[in-house]
Amino acid sequence: MPYRAPGSPGHSRQQFLSGKPISYYRPTGSADIRRLIDDGFQAFNAGRLSEACQIFAGKMLAPENDTTIGLTIAGAMTPAGLGGCVIEMLDRGLVDFIISTGANLYHDLHYALNFTLRRGSPFVDDRELYEDGVIRIYDVLFPATVLLETDAYIREFLVRSKLNDATSTSELHYRLGLDLLERFPGCDEHSVVARAAKDGVPIYTSSPGDSSIGMNIAYHELMNDSRFMIDPNKDVNEVCAIVLAGKQNGCVILGGGSPKNFYLQAQPTLWEVYGIMKGGNDYFIQITTDQVVWGGLSGATPSEAVSWGKVNPGVLPDTVVAYCDSTVAFPLFCEYAVGSPNGRRQRKELVHKREQLVAALRREAKMADEKRKAEV
Amino acid sequence: MPYRAPGSPGHSRQQFLSGKPISYYRPTGSADIRRLIDDGFQAFNAGRLSEACQIFAGKMLAPENDTTIGLTIAGAMTPAGLGGCVIEMLDRGLVDFIISTGANLYHDLHYALNFTLRRGSPFVDDRELYEDGVIRIYDVLFPATVLLETDAYIREFLVRSKLNDATSTSELHYRLGLDLLERFPGCDEHSVVARAAKDGVPIYTSSPGDSSIGMNIAYHELMNDSRFMIDPNKDVNEVCAIVLAGKQNGCVILGGGSPKNFYLQAQPTLWEVYGIMKGGNDYFIQITTDQVVWGGLSGATPSEAVSWGKVNPGVLPDTVVAYCDSTVAFPLFCEYAVGSPNGRRQRKELVHKREQLVAALRREAKMADEKRKAEV
Amino acid sequence: MPYRAPGSPGHSRQQFLSGKPISYYRPTGSADIRRLIDDGFQAFNAGRLSEACQIFAGKMLAPENDTTIGLTIAGAMTPAGLGGCVIEMLDRGLVDFIISTGANLYHDLHYALNFTLRRGSPFVDDRELYEDGVIRIYDVLFPATVLLETDAYIREFLVRSKLNDATSTSELHYRLGLDLLERFPGCDEHSVVARAAKDGVPIYTSSPGDSSIGMNIAYHELMNDSRFMIDPNKDVNEVCAIVLAGKQNGCVILGGGSPKNFYLQAQPTLWEVYGIMKGGNDYFIQITTDQVVWGGLSGATPSEAVSWGKVNPGVLPDTVVAYCDSTVAFPLFCEYAVGSPNGRRQRKELVHKREQLVAALRREAKMADEKRKAEV
Amino acid sequence: MPYRAPGSPGHSRQQFLSGKPISYYRPTGSADIRRLIDDGFQAFNAGRLSEACQIFAGKMLAPENDTTIGLTIAGAMTPAGLGGCVIEMLDRGLVDFIISTGANLYHDLHYALNFTLRRGSPFVDDRELYEDGVIRIYDVLFPATVLLETDAYIREFLVRSKLNDATSTSELHYRLGLDLLERFPGCDEHSVVARAAKDGVPIYTSSPGDSSIGMNIAYHELMNDSRFMIDPNKDVNEVCAIVLAGKQNGCVILGGGSPKNFYLQAQPTLWEVYGIMKGGNDYFIQITTDQVVWGGLSGATPSEAVSWGKVNPGVLPDTVVAYCDSTVAFPLFCEYAVGSPNGRRQRKELVHKREQLVAALRREAKMADEKRKAEV
Repeated sequence: MPYRAPGSPGHSRQQFLSGKPISYYRPTGSADIRRLIDDGFQAFNAGRLSEACQIFAGKMLAPENDTTIGLTIAGAMTPAGLGGCVIEMLDRGLVDFIISTGANLYHDLHYALNFTLRRGSPFVDDRELYEDGVIRIYDVLFPATVLLETDAYIREFLVRSKLNDATSTSELHYRLGLDLLERFPGCDEHSVVARAAKDGVPIYTSSPGDSSIGMNIAYHELMNDSRFMIDPNKDVNEVCAIVLAGKQNGCVILGGGSPKNFYLQAQPTLWEVYGIMKGGNDYFIQITTDQVVWGGLSGATPSEAVSWGKVNPGVLPDTVVAYCDSTVAFPLFCEYAVGSPNGRRQRKELVHKREQLVAALRREAKMADEKRKAEV
Repeated sequence: MPYRAPGSPGHSRQQFLSGKPISYYRPTGSADIRRLIDDGFQAFNAGRLSEACQIFAGKMLAPENDTTIGLTIAGAMTPAGLGGCVIEMLDRGLVDFIISTGANLYHDLHYALNFTLRRGSPFVDDRELYEDGVIRIYDVLFPATVLLETDAYIREFLVRSKLNDATSTSELHYRLGLDLLERFPGCDEHSVVARAAKDGVPIYTSSPGDSSIGMNIAYHELMNDSRFMIDPNKDVNEVCAIVLAGKQNGCVILGGGSPKNFYLQAQPTLWEVYGIMKGGNDYFIQITTDQVVWGGLSGATPSEAVSWGKVNPGVLPDTVVAYCDSTVAFPLFCEYAVGSPNGRRQRKELVHKREQLVAALRREAKMADEKRKAEV
Repeated sequence: MPYRAPGSPGHSRQQFLSGKPISYYRPTGSADIRRLIDDGFQAFNAGRLSEACQIFAGKMLAPENDTTIGLTIAGAMTPAGLGGCVIEMLDRGLVDFIISTGANLYHDLHYALNFTLRRGSPFVDDRELYEDGVIRIYDVLFPATVLLETDAYIREFLVRSKLNDATSTSELHYRLGLDLLERFPGCDEHSVVARAAKDGVPIYTSSPGDSSIGMNIAYHELMNDSRFMIDPNKDVNEVCAIVLAGKQNGCVILGGGSPKNFYLQAQPTLWEVYGIMKGGNDYFIQITTDQVVWGGLSGATPSEAVSWGKVNPGVLPDTVVAYCDSTVAFPLFCEYAVGSPNGRRQRKELVHKREQLVAALRREAKMADEKRKAEV
Repeated sequence: MPYRAPGSPGHSRQQFLSGKPISYYRPTGSADIRRLIDDGFQAFNAGRLSEACQIFAGKMLAPENDTTIGLTIAGAMTPAGLGGCVIEMLDRGLVDFIISTGANLYHDLHYALNFTLRRGSPFVDDRELYEDGVIRIYDVLFPATVLLETDAYIREFLVRSKLNDATSTSELHYRLGLDLLERFPGCDEHSVVARAAKDGVPIYTSSPGDSSIGMNIAYHELMNDSRFMIDPNKDVNEVCAIVLAGKQNGCVILGGGSPKNFYLQAQPTLWEVYGIMKGGNDYFIQITTDQVVWGGLSGATPSEAVSWGKVNPGVLPDTVVAYCDSTVAFPLFCEYAVGSPNGRRQRKELVHKREQLVAALRREAKMADEKRKAEV
């Protein structure tokens, strides 16, 4: 490891890496947990979480509503071991597409590549960690070599893939997932990216340059003269097209951040830019610790979203924000959903329908455009 | 306005749009405010804000340190009228480049285009706002037509610009700023995008598809068959190159979010991906209300960044996080900086040096690569 | 109801009072929940909550440690239905004494008196609630008459009790509990105050004038010329004496506020005021959403408490703060504890030992005093 | 210092006690700061703080409204040096009575007794502090001997005062302030307790046993057989009487906690317990970082208070919560108030009117009682 990089002097890391390995816990639909959520979670944020579970399992998943459900992920969820919840949800068809920070997808690769992240403490001395070459994500610890080797895998994948054009992030992640499945059979038990590829669930990233995946693609362009790049236009239009095609639309938002906005902006893109009236989301569930009073979008309420046409003004009763760390609330939420009568749906496999959905979006937009011109 | 869009029935908006117009307040370097910060802000977050002011004005701006300073902006700062602070800072050379959410830049255009955003309340009924066609950003209110007309300007600019290739966001914003300057003379008093173009300050967006600017570019591709797109690789490499070239490096982080990470990842990109040792940031100032205990990157401490090689392990005393709404803390911070003996620096005008800096990055990366291969 | 009181015009309340009644959910020690906490709660606040459960069940409750355990309660826990968790804990001997805000005890009386609080929403119009005579605690709703009738019960109890002297709050709450048990047989299934009296668990209030109980005692003095009053000195000394007598000491802190400080100050009272060396708490568990960076005592860390001698400097590994709404985290915590091998302990019944413990405190303090004088 | 007390081994403290002394900054009414608040603080919490300043200076202080103004203080404000703001406010008659945590009053005594608290860091090692006998309040540091000597002063005062009965906290603090004025002439420039005594401003504590003052009174009872105690009934009734006598009523709430509730419960005590209709507060200003969504009283909104009859339902526009650390917001708020045209009022000197106000309360309560009985 080079000088001035974390861990370059090559100290021992044993001191910090003695915690239990973090694994992808899979919810099984516990009846006890469902009872606690129904009967014990009565007020305050427990009440909100209970409402969120009931709206999701009772309404969003109801077969007659055929809701197209987006899951957005911000905050270090895969490092904290929540990838197992995501795998269970997408495998059961309870989530139709995902918008995630790049970091969550990058760190998911560690599990696929069989590296070990460990439980630790947030109170360690980071200068010692630096000396010892140990990387810290709050209380999750692992050797810096995990970064270097995951980076190497990404760069090799890029070369191997022969990708050499502008693509969407959904295509990148799909191709990456297929590569993982081929090279690491069985890794789809331990990798959201791999399982999503297998199950046909598209994964988007709202900030494609903003993660180690993006950093390595940038390397590929600068050093290998590759012409592979992410075209954010494709992502914007694909997500719009998916939302447009939904009979009903709803979301589960973990955290907030740019994935939240990237999901929510699909409806304003439709009316504000394309002139297509869709009417806003029908369901809106957010689990976050951000606060409305700080004014930012992460903490903005479903109500504020109404004024933007992001949320249907008629459905505020079907929107809920539970203020809780996702590491606590999301596993509870998934246990509830998995154990519910609607705990399995036919998967939509949207990865394979992207082209046709975007074509439909273009058609509708052209029609709206012509209608507008005719009206002037 | 089309049916099912906010305001389509065409109600009166007078009820909601009676507040004072929001304008771009410009800090003037008040001695009273400097005295309050030095003598009255002694402990807790007042103490942290005081330290941040002193580190910025006393160390980061000190001529002998020649610090390359990045400002990252998350949260709705321009809607809240903080663009005047940003203009003052970049005009005085106190900030060398900017990484912002797209929303801040999009809403900055309203001021350039002479639309009016108004002071309001966060407690209004959003269903009424929706009926009346009034858009709400927390307590900032304006007619939905402001969105539609700003969108139209962006789409016309895109056509006019003849941009038809993959570019960096810095190039997009620079071209946009030049267009504003040409078409709306004097607007650089009321627009960060325009002033930054005039002053040669590059502006990056970490999530290029995630804002109305990105939505309109996506329209341009889908509807006009344009080949213009943002290439995030260029952004990653330009920011890396700017950081690599800095004698010292430091940042002022407003909020957190993906702009924070996009700035901070430059150092790991250098050591982790390009094999170039730079040693981490020398200064780190963050104003945020996010919290470390939620585990996300927005709230992560400078200390946690040390383990990643983002912050130089030797400089923790020159890092500080002040927990405060930026709308309160940033104007105070700017008053302090502007009034300090180092309140004006030669502008670096990095917009005009991007190509040469990226070339230098490529050279160093190639050398590092060859050295690595030789060592194996 | 008098004019200008909430609800005086006598509107219908049906609109707001249609939610499910809130009841006291009793944890049963679910194995599923224990598995989720052990295996699924791996990092971030889920990790902290898991650690808290393991420290409590594995160490604090271990028979060989014989830990004297204080539970402090701030925030509206009984209105939210968490009284059932508290009852289960004190009945099983898992909590030896309680320090609570007066509000939690006052609202607990509603359940004993068989009034109904209901699930509602935090987004209702409070001016309408006021007109309709409905009281709101965040999202818990009930008629204003519940207050008036509970107040009447308290005043009648005061008259009936013939209390006419300065007493501790533990004595007041014990006498109140006995009165409830006598007049409402079986109410100890639905009342913390009643069950604590039955089980001999003393309950203290750090701010005795600051609740409707205190308000009605003040009435009793002003209007009935009673000489009954709370003597805070007795509370301070009783809590000190309980802590002094503990073989090991530990606490479970819900929220923070003055109950937290009232518990923690016992150790400084011993060394700082009485000159008796005890050495600080051995265990410290807090569930809160307050933050250390705001500087207040509610959010202060176990580490900060070390400098005050509140926490034994050697035991920081046995201290943990989980940042989570208690309505979510405390039921999970109780399920874990109840289901653990140490899920039942012999009750200490400290109510009946207060006099003897305070006598021991006085003895030790006198000895320390004489030793000090001898040393001068 | 005794063994097992902080600092007992007698290490050097120089390492930690090198920061600048904290002093009581006095606001002077800066025109620059007023301009920033009026013109630069336009939205989000800056907007709220601006509104709070305008409501306070423009309405609450307006001579024609003759508002009785209570200030409640939670969080470690005097350790952070904010006592100077409080002194300026009460000296100018801008605050008529105070409800504070005991800790703020206890630590205020250090300044009166000429001890030095110093600026430090929240990131020091508390085990080292403990060894060195240094006490930490977040980032404020001072020797443990400051506690011991302040405690000794309190105990000597108690002996000297010959107080031997049940009194209100306002009487205790008044007597304490007079003692300070007599023994440390001029200390009213550096002590809220002393200045309040001089200016006749009553100071209440909602949790009288919960601070080092309360601890030392408890010692006095246990060790000296004193019969001096705090009677919370007197506090409840005095605050009620003050509120009842107000032509208009308003509050400035710093933080939240039990002082907030103790102030706000005065109105429900009047209607709910005494049957006297007063109608709720006319103005409500809170500066806090607590959040409504956690459900507790600290973060509860003025709106929630309406349903309890604490806030007049007609005045919601004159209520405002600014979410900001008080160490930043309160000095700004005071600068604004002091510099306003209403920056000085005739002091009410309520300390000298307590008896007569309580007599009036009793009279009205008796009348209400008789009327009630007549109606039955």
